[in-house]
Amino acid sequence: MSGLFITFEGGEGAGKSTQARLLADHLCALGLDVELTREPGGTPGAEALRDFLLFGGHDLSPRAEVMAHFAARADHVDRCIAPALAAGKVVVCDRFTDSTEAYQGCGLGQGEPALLDMIARLSALIPVVPDLTLVLQVPPAIAAARMAARGNGRTDRYEALDTAFHARVAAGFDAIARRDGTRCRRIDASAATGAVHDDICAIVAPYLNRVANA
Amino acid sequence: MSGLFITFEGGEGAGKSTQARLLADHLCALGLDVELTREPGGTPGAEALRDFLLFGGHDLSPRAEVMAHFAARADHVDRCIAPALAAGKVVVCDRFTDSTEAYQGCGLGQGEPALLDMIARLSALIPVVPDLTLVLQVPPAIAAARMAARGNGRTDRYEALDTAFHARVAAGFDAIARRDGTRCRRIDASAATGAVHDDICAIVAPYLNRVANA
Repeated sequence: MSGLFITFEGGEGAGKSTQARLLADHLCALGLDVELTREPGGTPGAEALRDFLLFGGHDLSPRAEVMAHFAARADHVDRCIAPALAAGKVVVCDRFTDSTEAYQGCGLGQGEPALLDMIARLSALIPVVPDLTLVLQVPPAIAAARMAARGNGRTDRYEALDTAFHARVAAGFDAIARRDGTRCRRIDASAATGAVHDDICAIVAPYLNRVANA
Repeated sequence: MSGLFITFEGGEGAGKSTQARLLADHLCALGLDVELTREPGGTPGAEALRDFLLFGGHDLSPRAEVMAHFAARADHVDRCIAPALAAGKVVVCDRFTDSTEAYQGCGLGQGEPALLDMIARLSALIPVVPDLTLVLQVPPAIAAARMAARGNGRTDRYEALDTAFHARVAAGFDAIARRDGTRCRRIDASAATGAVHDDICAIVAPYLNRVANA
């Protein structure tokens, strides 16, 4: 009854949301009990904090912004992820703690050691760690083209930041994936959607033995 | 240039806000540079989080609620308290970390050790500690009468909780004041406002030597 916790990470335009949904559909088709969720958000309280953080127009100090993201994460873990894992489900989550490190620590915080240390300490207070993290990577030009192609919907405060910010975020994800090489797999997400999905399914397959009914 | 950081703590109806204002006025009259502030809140971002937490109607998990309070605190410290102290000011703050321990840890969390441990770890991430904490204490009947007499204004989510909750909060503050006996002074706040103010001024007086222009 330990479930399986898979997270998708990466910068804007890497295709995380699409690939998370395709993987969830694939796992459902295999007969697995799947919980597809996202961060920030995933529960009513965390979605309200998402709105506060991404669209509220509030200007928090870097440490405050990090803590507010972890507040949303704590609610999401306590009310959604941990219960789903305890029930033996596969949890597929679009973004998790690595995004806080890459966006707030490396992107906004420009890698300030005290801020990265705080993120690590807060992360240690969250009682779940992904079994597998898929870090989707695309060259900046492709990411920019995909973001432009979205068109619809609101632009959140991170999407609206400059290319230097997004370059720091991408470098942050790359560093995380290299540092935590056992948990993380880097995926070249510049290929067609179906080909990336096939790559992901092949990586995920060996992990399915550990969940019931696989 | 280290300033002086004085916090007021206590349950509802103890008279914290009134006494904090009276002390701030007294210190201003002495020629000191005073910053009167409050928690949750004290900065635009933290006040927005205050509104989210106290009046938003959101139901966060206990750990998420604690982290969101610390997010507000981090903004308040980074943007208001720490700069004021660095400038040599006297900061008088209506509630601080002890309130999180008493309300979220002891009141809502009923003293759950893991939650109290998390509060201690988050507290360690906040780089300021009060020089003096005045813990205002009143018997439950007086507190209830004062709360009823307020009449005007919105009732926040903690004020609206039952007497057992408020008893746990009061017991929590008492335990904190006994544990941190060097920092904390317990004040019998059941007397008349002027008499309590005189008691507080007498306690604060020896601390004023350390701030400039006292």
